[in-house]
This record gives sequence, structure tokens and C-alpha cells, in this order.
Amino acid sequence: MGRITARRPVVKITLGVPPARRADTLAVEEPLEIRVAGTPLAVTMRTPGHDVELAAGFLVSEGVISHGGQFRTAIHCAGPGDTGNTYNVLDVALAAGVALPDPASARNFYTTSSCGLCGKASIDAVQTVSTYDVATDPVTIAPELLVTFPDLLRAEQAAFDKTGGLHAAALFDAVTGELVVVREDVGRHNAVDKVVGWAVLHDRLPLSGQVLMVSGRASFELVQKAVMAGIPILSAVSAPSSLAVELAASAGLSLIGFLRGASMNVYAGSERLIPAVARSTGSDRTSS
Amino acid sequence: MGRITARRPVVKITLGVPPARRADTLAVEEPLEIRVAGTPLAVTMRTPGHDVELAAGFLVSEGVISHGGQFRTAIHCAGPGDTGNTYNVLDVALAAGVALPDPASARNFYTTSSCGLCGKASIDAVQTVSTYDVATDPVTIAPELLVTFPDLLRAEQAAFDKTGGLHAAALFDAVTGELVVVREDVGRHNAVDKVVGWAVLHDRLPLSGQVLMVSGRASFELVQKAVMAGIPILSAVSAPSSLAVELAASAGLSLIGFLRGASMNVYAGSERLIPAVARSTGSDRTSS
Repeated sequence: MGRITARRPVVKITLGVPPARRADTLAVEEPLEIRVAGTPLAVTMRTPGHDVELAAGFLVSEGVISHGGQFRTAIHCAGPGDTGNTYNVLDVALAAGVALPDPASARNFYTTSSCGLCGKASIDAVQTVSTYDVATDPVTIAPELLVTFPDLLRAEQAAFDKTGGLHAAALFDAVTGELVVVREDVGRHNAVDKVVGWAVLHDRLPLSGQVLMVSGRASFELVQKAVMAGIPILSAVSAPSSLAVELAASAGLSLIGFLRGASMNVYAGSERLIPAVARSTGSDRTSS
Repeated sequence: MGRITARRPVVKITLGVPPARRADTLAVEEPLEIRVAGTPLAVTMRTPGHDVELAAGFLVSEGVISHGGQFRTAIHCAGPGDTGNTYNVLDVALAAGVALPDPASARNFYTTSSCGLCGKASIDAVQTVSTYDVATDPVTIAPELLVTFPDLLRAEQAAFDKTGGLHAAALFDAVTGELVVVREDVGRHNAVDKVVGWAVLHDRLPLSGQVLMVSGRASFELVQKAVMAGIPILSAVSAPSSLAVELAASAGLSLIGFLRGASMNVYAGSERLIPAVARSTGSDRTSS
């Protein structure tokens, strides 16, 4: 588990009982400076591990790259004042011909443990434009399959998250229901970037036919990351925000929230949800 | 409630039951561009409402101001391409003599719905330096009082959050246990900035003798915001991260996590937790 979790002494206080000293397991949060060709681009507060994926996914979210061939290598290196390698600085080499991020936008990104891509000061700059059109992805999904995803995700988390402090994101195949990859992080945006970055390193962008499943809420930012990676369906255990719903509707992404037990709320793109029973009998779609 | 929540149509799917169209209440998430003296400084994805407090608290978190007298006025204005006032751009006037944020750092802040202050690309720049020394705050708190805070916070939330998508932050008086102010937002950092901004507008910085209570987890960033506002005690319903504990310990802030029912974990500064029963009998502190 390395630096993913850390043991720290804690004083447990329970009313009516003497205080007890014990050790508690915490999610590790550390800064990662992402550089491109030696130039600092962003600092994100993340859980160490899968850093190369995190950087690759971040660059997709930012619109710098859109397929695996554009990402060449990444190495951990020492920071400016560091005497050794702290594994908190990662330098990315992009393929020849990939436009580097605008130098004027360098030093513009800082992301905290629950923040996505940063560096914009004007509202117009908030929305990035995707290479992929998720609206035309013909994939559909059976609600009977979708309701199995939260337990599959939790089973993976159970082995990993003893801290109560990590968000999870996973890719599922919309047809087979197979869990393709799962990642966890103190920042939900980082968990999604790591999943997308995994796909970059396996040259699997765009992620058509895939479902992105997240353990918490769905914000504008997570919908945007899904669209940038060409993912047509985003499902969340908790609530979406108003802007998440608006962006999903305008981009043609199917957005599911409150996916719990045998039920779910479909906030956009409900035409993709077709019951397995309707498919086998040839009857029509659930609804539009 | 204005634009704090929004009603949106949703398709509710439950296995074995016909899908039903109904309306759902969502937390509103919209961008706010914060300007200082006309210069764009930051965009944050926030829940509208208490925008002036949000801007004031953000400027405290960023180290631009540290007391109420430095914040003069703030007005909503039209954005560059806007024909009218969208209430998504806020221009702040600071008092004469307050140094404006470095122009080189302008256009450097972008915060998403769960992100705090942004705009740093190097790790050294992540930590801001506080005017206040919370380590010297002599306040103590009785665990018997602290355990009442989550219910008091939830009672306020119950009246407000029908969305499942809002984070809450509140100030409590450490001695009387009085709830001083509570704010909610899709971004937990925004909820804290609104609380701190409320204190700026009431000229109550530093917030010595106060407890900051948050509805979710405690990240590095939330500890930093507490320290910048001079708050000596931070308590969270859920887990802290490793870096939150490290910063709390080094800054002398008392950090409590998993505050639920009759118990809590104290991760730093446990010398401030003194049972009421120990006080009345004159016995010693809980632990160090």
C-alpha cells in the first residue's frame, strides 16, 4: 500500500470512558507537481500512486492530449529545492508535434484534494472543448446491469480504503458489465483523472461504450472530464449538481445519480437506459 | 431559497416497476468570477448566495486580507460578454493601503465545486502564511459540548439541504457551544470561505475561541483556511487526510475527526479537550 495510507497516533475520546491512545489509518494527501517538458504546469493535492496515470488523465481533462500516442513518458524527478527524489514532482514528455500547453497558462494550475483542473480566471475559459462527441455513441445499458456496479465498486474499495477518506472512480463495460479499472484518491477528480490516464497509457481513448462510476457526487467538473475522455455514461452514488445536469444534457452524456439498491435517477440521456427484459422481448425503450 | 436549489425533471428507474418521470431538487452550481479593483482574480464553482462573504473569505484564505477593515465593498457586475448582470461576477474594493494581489498571479485562480484556492504551480507556493498564531490561543473545549455540534449543524441543514449535494460549515463558540453562523455550498471549501467571510464582514477576525465544524472530511486545505482565519479548533464529521493532520500539528490547531454520537478522534492538539466533569472537579486534562 506504500504511501497510500499512513498510521498516525490519535486520542479516541468517548463520553463516559477514559480517553484512549491508539493508531488510526489515514488517507495520504501529498502535493504532486506536474511538469511538461520541464515546465511546471500544475500542483494537485493527491494520494500518491498511479501518478503517471494522474498526469496523463489531467492532460486529457485539460485538452492538451486526446489519445495515447500523444503521451510519451513520465518520470519522477527532484523538485527545485530538493536534494533527492521526493516522488512529488513528475515530468511528462509528450510526443513530437503535440502542442505544449500555452506558456502563459503555465504556473496557473493548482488543485486541492477535491479540485479538478485549475488555471482559469474567466468564466468563458471554464469549459474545455472535447475532441470526442459522446452524443453519437450508440451504446445502451440495462438498468439491471447498472445496479450491480456500486457493489462491485465497493468490493474493490473494501480491500483498499480503511480510512473513510478516499473517493473511488471506475470504468465498467456497458455491455458486459465488467469492471475494467478502479482508482482511489483523496480527490474525486484525481480518481477520475487516474482512470482516464489508465486508458491513455493503454491507448484506449475515446472510452466509447464505457460507464464511468463514481463513489460520491457528480459535479460539473466530473461530467466535463467524462466528455473530454469520450465516456458516454456517468453514474454516481450521490447527487449531481445543476450544472452537471446542464452540461450532460448539452453534451449528450447520460447522467445517473443516486444509484442505490434497485433504483436510480436519470438526469440526462435516459434513452440509453433499456431494460434487459425489454431487449429480450423486443419492446420499446424505457423512456426518452 | 432563490438559486440555491433548482428543480429538474428526472426519470426514476426502479427494477420491476415502470419508470416514472418526476421532479428532483438539485444543488445549484454556478461559476463566480471574483475580481479585485476590476481585475479578474479567480473563478470558483459555487452555490449562489452569500457571494460577498465567499469573496471576503477567499481573500483571507489567500492571505490578501486578514481583518474586516481591509474589505471595503463588493458589487455584482456584468461579465465581459454579458449584456446584463448574471450575478456571477463580483468586483471587490479593498481599503486604501491594502496591497492588491500580485498582477502576475491574476488569472491564476480557478476553483471547482470542491476545490479551494488555486493558482500555484510549485509546491513551495501551496502553503500560505497566516497573520495569526492559533497555537497560542488558550481556549479549551469540553468533549460533552463538542458532541452536540453535529446535531445542531444537521438541524440547520435539514431546513435547507433537500438535495443531498451540499456541504455545510459552521462556527461554534467553544465556551458556550452557541452556533454562531452556518453556510452551505456544493464546495466544502466555499462553505468554509463563506463562514470566514461572514466574520470579515462583522469584523470578527481572528476567530479565536471558535470551533469550525464541517459536515464532511478535513483536507489540508480546510486546515489551512482555519489557520488563516485564526480558528484554533477544527472538527469534522468524517476523516482527515495525512497532510491535514501534519499541518494542524505544526500550526498548533486542534483537529478532531469522526465526531459522531458520543465519540471522536483527536488527531492534533488534544490538550485543548478538557471534560466538563474534570473542570468541575478540578482534575487534570484528558491527555496531551
